[in-house]
Amino acid sequence: MQKEKIKTFNEINDIFYPKSIAVVGTNNVTGSVPYDIFENILHDRFQGILYPVSPSEKNVTSVKSYKYVLDIEDDVDMAILVFPSSVAHLAMEQIGQKGIKSMIVISAGFKEVGGKGIEREKKIKEIADKYGISFIGPNCLGVINTDSKCHMNASFARAMPEEGNIAFISQSGALCTAVLDYANAKHIGFSKFVSFGNKADIDEIDLLNYLKDDPKTKVILMYLEEVTNGKALMEAAKKVTAETGKPILAIKSGRTAEGASAAASHTGSLAGSDEITNAAFEQAGIIRCENLEEMFDYAKAFAYQPLPKSKNMAIITNAGGPGVLATDKAINSGLSLGKFEEATTRILKKSLPAAANIKNPVDVIGDARADRYNVAISATIKDKNIDGVNVILTPQSMTEIEAIAEDIVKVVNRSDKPVYTSFMGETDVAKGIDILQRNNIPHYILPEDMVKAMSATTKFNERLKERSESKIKQFSDVNKEKATKILDKAIAENKTYLPEEEAVKVLKAYNFPVLPNGLANSKDEAGKIADEIKYPVVMKIISSDIVHKFDIGGVILNIQNREEAEKAYKQILKNVKKAMPKADIKGVFVQKMVEEGQEVILGLKKDNSFGSVIMFGLGGIFVEIFKDVNFKVAPISEDEVDNMIQSIRSYPILTGTRGSIKRDIKSLKETIQRLSQLAIDCPQINELDINPLIVRNEGNGCFVADTKIML
Amino acid sequence: MQKEKIKTFNEINDIFYPKSIAVVGTNNVTGSVPYDIFENILHDRFQGILYPVSPSEKNVTSVKSYKYVLDIEDDVDMAILVFPSSVAHLAMEQIGQKGIKSMIVISAGFKEVGGKGIEREKKIKEIADKYGISFIGPNCLGVINTDSKCHMNASFARAMPEEGNIAFISQSGALCTAVLDYANAKHIGFSKFVSFGNKADIDEIDLLNYLKDDPKTKVILMYLEEVTNGKALMEAAKKVTAETGKPILAIKSGRTAEGASAAASHTGSLAGSDEITNAAFEQAGIIRCENLEEMFDYAKAFAYQPLPKSKNMAIITNAGGPGVLATDKAINSGLSLGKFEEATTRILKKSLPAAANIKNPVDVIGDARADRYNVAISATIKDKNIDGVNVILTPQSMTEIEAIAEDIVKVVNRSDKPVYTSFMGETDVAKGIDILQRNNIPHYILPEDMVKAMSATTKFNERLKERSESKIKQFSDVNKEKATKILDKAIAENKTYLPEEEAVKVLKAYNFPVLPNGLANSKDEAGKIADEIKYPVVMKIISSDIVHKFDIGGVILNIQNREEAEKAYKQILKNVKKAMPKADIKGVFVQKMVEEGQEVILGLKKDNSFGSVIMFGLGGIFVEIFKDVNFKVAPISEDEVDNMIQSIRSYPILTGTRGSIKRDIKSLKETIQRLSQLAIDCPQINELDINPLIVRNEGNGCFVADTKIML
Repeated sequence: MQKEKIKTFNEINDIFYPKSIAVVGTNNVTGSVPYDIFENILHDRFQGILYPVSPSEKNVTSVKSYKYVLDIEDDVDMAILVFPSSVAHLAMEQIGQKGIKSMIVISAGFKEVGGKGIEREKKIKEIADKYGISFIGPNCLGVINTDSKCHMNASFARAMPEEGNIAFISQSGALCTAVLDYANAKHIGFSKFVSFGNKADIDEIDLLNYLKDDPKTKVILMYLEEVTNGKALMEAAKKVTAETGKPILAIKSGRTAEGASAAASHTGSLAGSDEITNAAFEQAGIIRCENLEEMFDYAKAFAYQPLPKSKNMAIITNAGGPGVLATDKAINSGLSLGKFEEATTRILKKSLPAAANIKNPVDVIGDARADRYNVAISATIKDKNIDGVNVILTPQSMTEIEAIAEDIVKVVNRSDKPVYTSFMGETDVAKGIDILQRNNIPHYILPEDMVKAMSATTKFNERLKERSESKIKQFSDVNKEKATKILDKAIAENKTYLPEEEAVKVLKAYNFPVLPNGLANSKDEAGKIADEIKYPVVMKIISSDIVHKFDIGGVILNIQNREEAEKAYKQILKNVKKAMPKADIKGVFVQKMVEEGQEVILGLKKDNSFGSVIMFGLGGIFVEIFKDVNFKVAPISEDEVDNMIQSIRSYPILTGTRGSIKRDIKSLKETIQRLSQLAIDCPQINELDINPLIVRNEGNGCFVADTKIML
Repeated sequence: MQKEKIKTFNEINDIFYPKSIAVVGTNNVTGSVPYDIFENILHDRFQGILYPVSPSEKNVTSVKSYKYVLDIEDDVDMAILVFPSSVAHLAMEQIGQKGIKSMIVISAGFKEVGGKGIEREKKIKEIADKYGISFIGPNCLGVINTDSKCHMNASFARAMPEEGNIAFISQSGALCTAVLDYANAKHIGFSKFVSFGNKADIDEIDLLNYLKDDPKTKVILMYLEEVTNGKALMEAAKKVTAETGKPILAIKSGRTAEGASAAASHTGSLAGSDEITNAAFEQAGIIRCENLEEMFDYAKAFAYQPLPKSKNMAIITNAGGPGVLATDKAINSGLSLGKFEEATTRILKKSLPAAANIKNPVDVIGDARADRYNVAISATIKDKNIDGVNVILTPQSMTEIEAIAEDIVKVVNRSDKPVYTSFMGETDVAKGIDILQRNNIPHYILPEDMVKAMSATTKFNERLKERSESKIKQFSDVNKEKATKILDKAIAENKTYLPEEEAVKVLKAYNFPVLPNGLANSKDEAGKIADEIKYPVVMKIISSDIVHKFDIGGVILNIQNREEAEKAYKQILKNVKKAMPKADIKGVFVQKMVEEGQEVILGLKKDNSFGSVIMFGLGGIFVEIFKDVNFKVAPISEDEVDNMIQSIRSYPILTGTRGSIKRDIKSLKETIQRLSQLAIDCPQINELDINPLIVRNEGNGCFVADTKIML
């Protein structure tokens, strides 16, 4: 599904900043959604005017109510619809007539219930389009804007969150309530908070595009259940990071989807929806989080503190054990413990007791009071070799928990380097944690989580710095027309896959390194073709009825001379006749055989959401057992193709290290780039395997030995 | 280091259950360790008599004090030593004279500070041994026993934990304070809580052995920084699980130790201390946890609820999103969502609204009140196809959080199946969570953590059921004397490794499938040997000065006849002379060459703590890039050797699936078992590589093609 048009900044902004709101369908039943929403907007101090619209009530709470939205004498900026879905379209008509252009549809009973609900959703969308209305929902919890200029809690959440610079947008409304409760207890504030439900009009792409330009938002969090338009999502996300450097953290559920279970091609069976999501998010710079805790662990770090300028960090602790655990995690997640400058070491030596460890990780020892922590943090944060400080505290009987927290706040306010904290425990450390959280110092119960968050911010910053405009190579020596014609013809003939001979023609049109070949219809012809292309050759049956040629004796390898060639032709026909007497045979394909080289597999799979995805890996055991393959969404840029090749684990086999032979990686790269171009030019291709592609010694190119194209 | 003698139950029990305690070295300085300990014992209602001993005070708090422990007129069961380390030995002498046999040494300043501290620790241990004293510490937080019969808080922790059936023993005192704080807030109770510090006398092995028989303990948690005696730890842990089925959960820090960085053998470089710890814990049935949170997540499940009888579980949720996340995690961690019986489906269909999902995972929908939850939980827990129920709740405005929690408690009390819960959020759900926690229902903020815990308890139960007495094979056709003689001679000659010819003799003494071979000292001799053992052969230089024979042309492969053999002999000597003119040459080793077969690698490495560790993996790329190897601590039982072979990822290459050839796994297994026996019989071997061992087709055995032994 293609996204027709992204909403403008103002279309979305009008929903977040209305000057007047009509709650259409509200009532006086406390505890019901129609009442709770009205009550929330009213009592959470909305800065504009609020109109209740109710067919039966004279007033809602003590506010004068209107029977119809058309009865309101003033202009209204936004409507919130809470009528049952069965009558929603009637109210929507009137909202349109009233000239209201912004809406939130809270009501459920639409697409999510199937049947009539789908019809109802279509209908309200039509009415909205007719009147030029932009709306969020239906089937959502609502929208919250903490900005004091507006201060709108247009949701039925239990409590309004604090103001902050984190935006949260979610496809699940139920999850929103849990998130708000969790965040409020930890003083995590939000700029905008959106439950977008069935996204019949405004979706996550519109919202990303808006939040990019929202000055109140520094970090964007997303919870997605299905990505309807992956391509557009990737584009929007890339723009956010490229133009503003705002990080996007996302949870996408459905990691064990069965999509990948049964597929005709290797690529198809390996490219599960989860692998594709991982690849796409990575390419788009979206940080995929495992769960809500990880998401907020990272969000706090991104939102509250500057990004670490390098991976060199310090750990300060009053307990050896947790210090070791944090160090382990730091090393394992790609950080390193910086070596202190002499000046730092001098200060630590002078101010800490002899039993303290003055090297990184610094151990101020269990009986440390606030002074030792203060010295250690102040000294290390000034150190040129340190770009981030992680403070661990365990509550000993003499530990001055609150004083230490206050000292940390002061140090952080004077520095442009990030400080994260882990006060371990719960009740005893609660007051200290509260001081940290209220002053925007990221806090984590576990030291390992603290360090993991610093790894995430460090990596994001490294990638921001590296990100340059990597070009997508366009080959001009390709014949799109020819390839399209072959594919379209097969589709017109209701074929679900191309016979190898045709598939090879498609590849040839895109100048893939296809081996010399020909189609034979007699043993003489087979012999002649083989003589021409020179021995050894391989022969394969060509028939639209036969997919697994190998299994029925339809392939003979390593044919060395004319005599063997003619014999092989006859043998293949005999084998096929025996196994599949009714198969429609087009001939026998004769192809040059390459023996020497490393077998790799290239593939293509069309994903409904993200479009064509390219796969690369080493062949045989590496793909079958170790699943050592990489995916990228096409088109693939120069940098991405390099990364794709270099980041499989078995890459050293291609580079000639450890006794293996150096292979022609340059030609491999070009072949992947051609596949990327083919994927974009010919979306008719549903799945494609090149298995194997034989990559020869450096300078000697690579060759397509076998290919399969599914339509 | 060998553990001489494990403490008896009573020796440890006397420390946990004294009838009278002397706190030796206490004072009236509030906030100091010597005072805090006394104060804690007194005010946490110790059930026996407490004597302060202080050289300077007449009374501590309002309790009459004694100048020396010898001054106390009554018998004293236990002493707690809090004097500075410099005078600890003097006090200890008196404690010994007083006839006290149980002690806790809280004082720091011993082994952990090095230098004089080491001497001091030795000294107090000597005094203890002289008087037959058993003691915990030094350098520890103390010991807590929540049993109401004793109720002893002999620690300087801020608060005493609740009574419970979880025991916690820790090498880090500082971590203990964090753990207590964390656990108290979550109403996690403990049976025994021990900070054992430097473990100069009583160590984790003694404590495991005690806790095995402690009727108050159901689950054992351990935090270790170094394992001094791994063998004994494994034995003790195996006994705990075998005799009582009590699970042991452990955190072992130091996962990124550098131990594995530089080693002479392949095995040496792959067997880092962390891999060895993993293997040893796994063999001993110890569940290794990543961090404290995971440890307590699992501990709650083990301590509070029956073990799940199968992996078939149900999920009940009022929010789709978290339901999907939990389902994903369940599948990924080896659980499965059971299919409901018809009766269950009927009840759910009747009682839940039409929009609800009545299949597993059950979605009772966002507006569910207590009744729907109650129906769903009661019905699914009775279902024969379900052995565990996971309940997810998100706080919607109408959710009856406390009522649902109370209903869960009731259902659990009537059932013998486990129920775990995840009430998502924090403040809104706090009262509900409190009800669950006070009633021993495991609760997790994240549904994923809930499901992960159920996976852990399920796997533990499966293993308990499987665990049978698996025998260790003992070969009688081995010549230990001969192997020992060769090794001892080399050690006497200060050699650090055995020349291949000698190494092969050691393997031959243990009846490894060594290829026919001989040592030649002239080209004629080489030719004769080759003729005898039949071609093709391989020749290799033998010299104690040359470790990397290949690199200097000291090996020639694939010698096909007499002429080539004589030529190869000369060539090897020429190559070696050129590269290492001063090398002391013992001759040229002629060995039968096996071409066909799968190359695997076997190895052995001696670990200071766990003893000899055996390694197995496929050779070449699989070990070098994918590190696809398994480790087991020797001796290896029948079951363990099977598991070792079958659980490498590349195992299918050996079984003949996916087009590969079926190899002689039986002979491979026997060879590993022989290596295990050699490792136990000859601890002189420091590292050993058999690389490659060539495993031929089924029925055709395997052969040692190259070996290296380090002393």
